[in-house]
Amino acid sequence: MMLISQGVFGQNASTVSILSRTILPAALLALATALAPAAALPAPAAGPRNVILIIGDGMDDQQITIARNYLAGPRGRLLLDRLPLRAAVQVLTVEDQVDGRPVYVADSANTATSMATGAVTSRGRIATTAGDDRDLTTIVELAEAAGYRTGLVTTASVTDATPAAFAAHISYRLCENPDDMVEIVYRGVSLGTRCSADRKASGGAGSIAEQLAGSGLDVILGGGRKHFAPLAEGEALSVLELARERGFQVVTTGEALAVADRERRLLGLFSAGTLPVRLRGESGRVAEKALPDPRQPGGVTLPKPMTCEPNPAFSGIPALRQMADAALAHLAHGNKRGFFLMIESASIDKQSHDRKPCGAIGEVAQLDEALASALAFAGTHPDTLVLVTSDHTHAAQLVPRESLFAPYGVATHGPGRLARILAPDGGLMAINYATSESPWEEHTGAAVPLLSNAEGVGRIPAFLQQPQIFQLMREYLGI
Amino acid sequence: MMLISQGVFGQNASTVSILSRTILPAALLALATALAPAAALPAPAAGPRNVILIIGDGMDDQQITIARNYLAGPRGRLLLDRLPLRAAVQVLTVEDQVDGRPVYVADSANTATSMATGAVTSRGRIATTAGDDRDLTTIVELAEAAGYRTGLVTTASVTDATPAAFAAHISYRLCENPDDMVEIVYRGVSLGTRCSADRKASGGAGSIAEQLAGSGLDVILGGGRKHFAPLAEGEALSVLELARERGFQVVTTGEALAVADRERRLLGLFSAGTLPVRLRGESGRVAEKALPDPRQPGGVTLPKPMTCEPNPAFSGIPALRQMADAALAHLAHGNKRGFFLMIESASIDKQSHDRKPCGAIGEVAQLDEALASALAFAGTHPDTLVLVTSDHTHAAQLVPRESLFAPYGVATHGPGRLARILAPDGGLMAINYATSESPWEEHTGAAVPLLSNAEGVGRIPAFLQQPQIFQLMREYLGI
Repeated sequence: MMLISQGVFGQNASTVSILSRTILPAALLALATALAPAAALPAPAAGPRNVILIIGDGMDDQQITIARNYLAGPRGRLLLDRLPLRAAVQVLTVEDQVDGRPVYVADSANTATSMATGAVTSRGRIATTAGDDRDLTTIVELAEAAGYRTGLVTTASVTDATPAAFAAHISYRLCENPDDMVEIVYRGVSLGTRCSADRKASGGAGSIAEQLAGSGLDVILGGGRKHFAPLAEGEALSVLELARERGFQVVTTGEALAVADRERRLLGLFSAGTLPVRLRGESGRVAEKALPDPRQPGGVTLPKPMTCEPNPAFSGIPALRQMADAALAHLAHGNKRGFFLMIESASIDKQSHDRKPCGAIGEVAQLDEALASALAFAGTHPDTLVLVTSDHTHAAQLVPRESLFAPYGVATHGPGRLARILAPDGGLMAINYATSESPWEEHTGAAVPLLSNAEGVGRIPAFLQQPQIFQLMREYLGI
Repeated sequence: MMLISQGVFGQNASTVSILSRTILPAALLALATALAPAAALPAPAAGPRNVILIIGDGMDDQQITIARNYLAGPRGRLLLDRLPLRAAVQVLTVEDQVDGRPVYVADSANTATSMATGAVTSRGRIATTAGDDRDLTTIVELAEAAGYRTGLVTTASVTDATPAAFAAHISYRLCENPDDMVEIVYRGVSLGTRCSADRKASGGAGSIAEQLAGSGLDVILGGGRKHFAPLAEGEALSVLELARERGFQVVTTGEALAVADRERRLLGLFSAGTLPVRLRGESGRVAEKALPDPRQPGGVTLPKPMTCEPNPAFSGIPALRQMADAALAHLAHGNKRGFFLMIESASIDKQSHDRKPCGAIGEVAQLDEALASALAFAGTHPDTLVLVTSDHTHAAQLVPRESLFAPYGVATHGPGRLARILAPDGGLMAINYATSESPWEEHTGAAVPLLSNAEGVGRIPAFLQQPQIFQLMREYLGI
């Protein structure tokens, strides 16, 4: 829990010159490196300077293409496709040991930690080091210390891994509230006591909710009201009451959000846990296995096509765009210094784990709308760097409606679950989920996209390591 | 078979302004568009001007990451990662009808046609239009007509879909040789007569091999000797003899390639079909299904880890780099005008269909080496645009070695085939193939990467449609 400088761990992880091994002659590497544009970093401007980091959790190119096909047609474009810069981001994860060995597939905790702190850590960790559990200073903490305002917006619980890693420090992502500090129950399964060392009674900083309540954040918007209901450890107040005592105004509806006092810090909690998503499969259907066809020995019946429909549970929930607009207005109000704002569309990932392509599509749409807000803001606030990225790749694959090998008379179905989605333009998309026989699909381990507005051009190389996103933001803010 | 201008079909398909529908207000789209850099296109320089288009067949970010992890380590870089520009390419495919509806997943024939001609066509087609089977002029034909030299290099048969689409016109990719024009036998299965209309007797141009033999290409290097063995239709000569008669010197070994006459056109055929690949799984192993564990009811045994090893069949086969070097030397020899060269690493795709991750890794390495040759050439020949791209995404997924949900006690294996690859640094990568229960995995439908050297910076937007690659190359060559 000792606070350490990024320099020790983060710069090492993010230095461009790191090449553990290579298959190419040094002279050629030098040649190729010479082709890369230099990252010219001017001194901060005199006016306010802002960073808006938009994270699509699990939003890889399969997911973006699936959403684009549905939302804009196979020749259409999302707004994110119109950003002028695109890079690939190498995701780095290690085992939970000091100098731990590399792990090839990440989770949202260690990737958010990379972006928030510039460090490489192990799965499940929230802004703490692998193995020896030291706290890592986050971009939010650095920005605050330099006089910037800060905000976190998410469609998950505000205590979920991605937002948490920007403002809390804890060894395990599921230590979300004071009750979790005693025993974690995840999807009905007891995971025992994983958070003891972080209890206040043990000299720790307490649960993620308690740390958020005690943080210097100016804006926190999302789900997770249930994590603020328990009594704070060693207090006679609930975590929510503690947050109020620390100066947060608390809102729980979109209407209250719209009229929030811009002079006071803002905590918005719009559902008990993860916010309901915008779209769902017809009658709640998800991807399904192909079934044996009783009429044809050896044949199968593919899942029936389905449409996407509005999710009734989304009614009354503020859209990500509404939260983003409120956060931007709040953070910019009378602000001469600038701000750091993280906006997460979290359920692209969560819906993909659950094999719900319609849900994931709707959450990409929510991200694209929040990007519209960010670009509109940047249009009137010139020194605003807008970044769009993902934290890790995911299971969903867009597969052929008719197999490439159908002409050759071979069986054409897959071994996993398939959703056949009828798009508004009449197209039929086949989406494959086949990474696990468990109730939940797995993440995958490919590089993720990073996009930016014109402020990123000349600053962001075409290929970078995820911890470098922290360095880019830090340098942009001059902190 | 009527030759048509790209303008009719290609420009329509590749115009940036096409937006079939959108979910965003026009003002915001205009704002975002304003952020994109203008594609400034200077007039061709006075000296030679060259385009080198390197295609990794099926090389998506999953495949690049898997190869990078193996070849350079999880923190390492391939040479392609050092290129200064990266974009995402929207892949477009239609049904085989005039004004056919969109198809979400492509094959190598229609994607190569997009890159070679600027048009959108249907799966299986080689530089011909969907539905009405008109010939589409290719970049090779335009370059030749403008006095440029041209070359095609591949690790597949030179008659395979990707190289074919740059220099031949035919309705179906498997019409590779004169025998195929009568009956196609693919992997032991008769597909009947699919090529009748393209027979010379029907007024067609004959098989792909015959069209290559009669082409104006200066360099053709790869596999596929068997396609040049049959008698050319209506001739007393084999296709190979026809090629010689048309002025090609023919080489069949790396040694002969090294000493080829640079004053004469060059046809190199280094194996009967697809060139053997560099790497294979230990003892030839491929991805396998998890098996029930007899010791544990409900449990499974995952496939044993395997190493990659040199493929004995690769012995004596020229590396892609050697072919690229020979092609570059040949095309540049005494050339004051410049050239167009396409270099394909074809078996990234073919090995992925066959669930052979080691094979695919070795072919990414071959591509990266050919890129080294291209960049070295560009280092001494300044007006050389080097592009690296893929034609479509593929089945392989890098999945967690230990499930993300293992701590929760749920089953963790997938329903498809898994390969667990021991990397040289001791890491264990788990690679999932689960798009089909047939003997062959399917392509997938996401956007693909496009990378370039500094010559592409300012010319290539961050997001484009695959037919725009044709326009970019055409404009770069000033043709």
